[in-house]
Amino acid sequence: MAQYLNRTLRQVQQQICKQFSRESQTIQQRNYANGTSSGSTPRRAVLYVPGSDQRKLSKIPSLKVDCAVMDCEDGVAVNRKDEARHTICKALDELVFGATECVARVNSVSSGLAEEDMKVILQANRLPDTIMLPKVESVQDIKWFSETLSQVLKHRDLRGDRINLVIFVESARGLLNLRDICLWGQELSKGDTCFNLDGIVFGSDDFCADIGATRTTDAMELLYARQKVVIIAKAFGLQAIDLVHIDYKDLESLKRTSEAGAGMGFTGKQVIHPSQVPIVQAAFSPSPAKIEWASQLIEEFKLHQASGQGAFNFRGHMIDKPLLLQAENVLKLAERIKDNDT
Amino acid sequence: MAQYLNRTLRQVQQQICKQFSRESQTIQQRNYANGTSSGSTPRRAVLYVPGSDQRKLSKIPSLKVDCAVMDCEDGVAVNRKDEARHTICKALDELVFGATECVARVNSVSSGLAEEDMKVILQANRLPDTIMLPKVESVQDIKWFSETLSQVLKHRDLRGDRINLVIFVESARGLLNLRDICLWGQELSKGDTCFNLDGIVFGSDDFCADIGATRTTDAMELLYARQKVVIIAKAFGLQAIDLVHIDYKDLESLKRTSEAGAGMGFTGKQVIHPSQVPIVQAAFSPSPAKIEWASQLIEEFKLHQASGQGAFNFRGHMIDKPLLLQAENVLKLAERIKDNDT
Amino acid sequence: MAQYLNRTLRQVQQQICKQFSRESQTIQQRNYANGTSSGSTPRRAVLYVPGSDQRKLSKIPSLKVDCAVMDCEDGVAVNRKDEARHTICKALDELVFGATECVARVNSVSSGLAEEDMKVILQANRLPDTIMLPKVESVQDIKWFSETLSQVLKHRDLRGDRINLVIFVESARGLLNLRDICLWGQELSKGDTCFNLDGIVFGSDDFCADIGATRTTDAMELLYARQKVVIIAKAFGLQAIDLVHIDYKDLESLKRTSEAGAGMGFTGKQVIHPSQVPIVQAAFSPSPAKIEWASQLIEEFKLHQASGQGAFNFRGHMIDKPLLLQAENVLKLAERIKDNDT
Repeated sequence: MAQYLNRTLRQVQQQICKQFSRESQTIQQRNYANGTSSGSTPRRAVLYVPGSDQRKLSKIPSLKVDCAVMDCEDGVAVNRKDEARHTICKALDELVFGATECVARVNSVSSGLAEEDMKVILQANRLPDTIMLPKVESVQDIKWFSETLSQVLKHRDLRGDRINLVIFVESARGLLNLRDICLWGQELSKGDTCFNLDGIVFGSDDFCADIGATRTTDAMELLYARQKVVIIAKAFGLQAIDLVHIDYKDLESLKRTSEAGAGMGFTGKQVIHPSQVPIVQAAFSPSPAKIEWASQLIEEFKLHQASGQGAFNFRGHMIDKPLLLQAENVLKLAERIKDNDT
Repeated sequence: MAQYLNRTLRQVQQQICKQFSRESQTIQQRNYANGTSSGSTPRRAVLYVPGSDQRKLSKIPSLKVDCAVMDCEDGVAVNRKDEARHTICKALDELVFGATECVARVNSVSSGLAEEDMKVILQANRLPDTIMLPKVESVQDIKWFSETLSQVLKHRDLRGDRINLVIFVESARGLLNLRDICLWGQELSKGDTCFNLDGIVFGSDDFCADIGATRTTDAMELLYARQKVVIIAKAFGLQAIDLVHIDYKDLESLKRTSEAGAGMGFTGKQVIHPSQVPIVQAAFSPSPAKIEWASQLIEEFKLHQASGQGAFNFRGHMIDKPLLLQAENVLKLAERIKDNDT
Repeated sequence: MAQYLNRTLRQVQQQICKQFSRESQTIQQRNYANGTSSGSTPRRAVLYVPGSDQRKLSKIPSLKVDCAVMDCEDGVAVNRKDEARHTICKALDELVFGATECVARVNSVSSGLAEEDMKVILQANRLPDTIMLPKVESVQDIKWFSETLSQVLKHRDLRGDRINLVIFVESARGLLNLRDICLWGQELSKGDTCFNLDGIVFGSDDFCADIGATRTTDAMELLYARQKVVIIAKAFGLQAIDLVHIDYKDLESLKRTSEAGAGMGFTGKQVIHPSQVPIVQAAFSPSPAKIEWASQLIEEFKLHQASGQGAFNFRGHMIDKPLLLQAENVLKLAERIKDNDT
């Protein structure tokens, strides 16, 4: 008997170790799979359009914005939620978005409205490319989303496609749990689910309200939070979308803060007015120097692969897989943004 | 037998999963209980008074400061610790503090002096509202505090009341372990213990010495640490008390740094001189605009509840439970600080 | 049987608890052992020299630099790695480095070159004081290093000495996993291994490329990352080496950024040109005021120990073990850097 127990205990220890190492392991591996290349959809400017406003929705195709969000949350009054759901559903089937990604933002899990949002919106024949989920605060939120989405889509054949999920960090708890949320999001994105975690938005207004901070122009009060979002996003191969610039008339200051965000590693920025789109998209476009760097790096990589070498030097640095992937993403992005920049 | 082992293993797996999910779960829930409303005691200015100085202690009631700390730690020489303990004990029973919270700061767990501090001070008939515990570095420290306090108070009837605990982060290790410390502090605050974790103080002097940093006026070298303290405090529904402004003669600069701290989300600030009190308390008072926002939000909430709706929009945002609680705290704070501001 | 299972389960629970508490416990304890005093080797300036350049290697002894890194990684082209390995091996045996620490930087674990680097370099009769391991991203990397080093050195008698290990953080994942990496590094440093984790270098160039950030002069885009590196390093009693100043001709700006790094808690800085050495080493030297503080503190400590007291006050603060250790390190550092400053 002692022998049996010992064996059981050994199995258990392995179990525990596996659990622990599984945790660390998942953070090690990014989305390097060729199929679902996370973060390759350009979202330099992310523009919100109230889902209940059919007129505004119909203008989306003319705005030349990378990412248009048909909103069910903040932009829609509670007594108009249902109208918004149906309007978005209809817009999905009727509008031709062209180079613009079409996104639906549902309400938060805690609002109790998100399930109905998904049920109505996802009746459209054309599913949205991406769902945005605001106020994600815990692993439970993302598990709830995964299960609800699977339930809602159980009779649809996605033909192997996944709907992108972009989550919002808008509270201290959300930020504190972000690493675990992404771990689970990444894990679920690999499994038998309908979505692929693709990005993180930093929702500064609710975040400031949550921690009791006051927004200033240079946003120094949010430096820790914003840079933490960037680090976690990049560690999981996700996009990071920066805070909104509220004063939509001050385009000079918009340019400055957009460039600051891009310089910090954000891949895009939220906008609330169409006039902000071109400035923001310019700030988050890869520079000619970056494109040249990426092209050269990929060329060198091919040469070294042809000669059977793995690692190689490029402009004073040993080049590894993550940098190669980044170079590829730069070129993909440069290619895909062309249509919105002409 | 194999069957038995399998069943055991399954139980074990559940055990492991439970352990993991318990961890995440606890972070999800803040102190929303109606009874113990964490963070509702105003501590805009936190003034230290040496516990061994009876004359200074007796002046506390006239200072109109939110929070007076009768100190056993840094402010008291080793050979006068015992004198300080007894003087504080006497002050608790003899002084009438009025609108000022009366706090006792004991020595750190690692000093070996804290148990004796508690034993003597807590002999007073009137217990302090709050105990401050400096240099908390690990979960073990907070467990030790919990057990020692229970032991010291075992013959007292607290009638369901709890003594507030405010902990100090003063080292790199303390900051690294702060999330776990708060998790345990929150967990213990719910259990069969005598205290309620209520706030975190950032002790910048010892922190700088610990990491080898040099203080500058704008404290950029502490930005990561300070903002991390705010985020963790807010995620657990705790107060966050900012660093002390050493140059107590430069009131202009005190005003600026107080407002910067308040803008970052801190709820109060340590002071070392009575002249600093009014400036600091003004900077950490809710603005008229904030009070108006809170009143309106609560009114709207009541209207929507009356009509049976849960979530609702307010000034462009969906309002959830945390924001409601925050609005309530703003009004409570505004009400409670009146006595120290006239 | 039920009894057996219950007992097993209880054992398992203890197992789980032990695992958890072991985690927290290890962070509590720094390297306070008298024997291996982590962080006592001065590395104010860390200068890279290409390992394949025998002429440059031979100049190291004349540079009066604290730490000279004979590089196998970024500074050496892939087709010259083998030449670099053998040149470094030879340099170890032939050069007299004097007051300069002699370090070998191998390639990253993921490059697939590190094992061969170690195999060749560690054939030298005189082993390097320290090995630098770039691009550490996960616990697995440091475990791999530990096992490989033990394997390579299995026939050598180190007489109880350990080779110092200094790791590089150069990616978002590396930063996210840094706490766990240090936990394991510290754990392995105590065990039956050949190394002692001694420091962390922040590799800003690769880090910026990884997160898509753009370097500015004041490096605000890296504030979170740099300060997190300092906090984690100090929590584990390790050195923290700051980013390189690329524009090696602008010595004025080098001075400013060196002092900013030192003020933030970094213990040293990477340099790429010998002309940067004296400026950087001056910025990271303990000031006369700091040396005086340390001497006085240690003297007071001895007095209080003689009189049987543990904790004591010094200049307005209760003094504990970490501060005492820090004071000792300041004096040790001041003593050891003399030879490179004359």
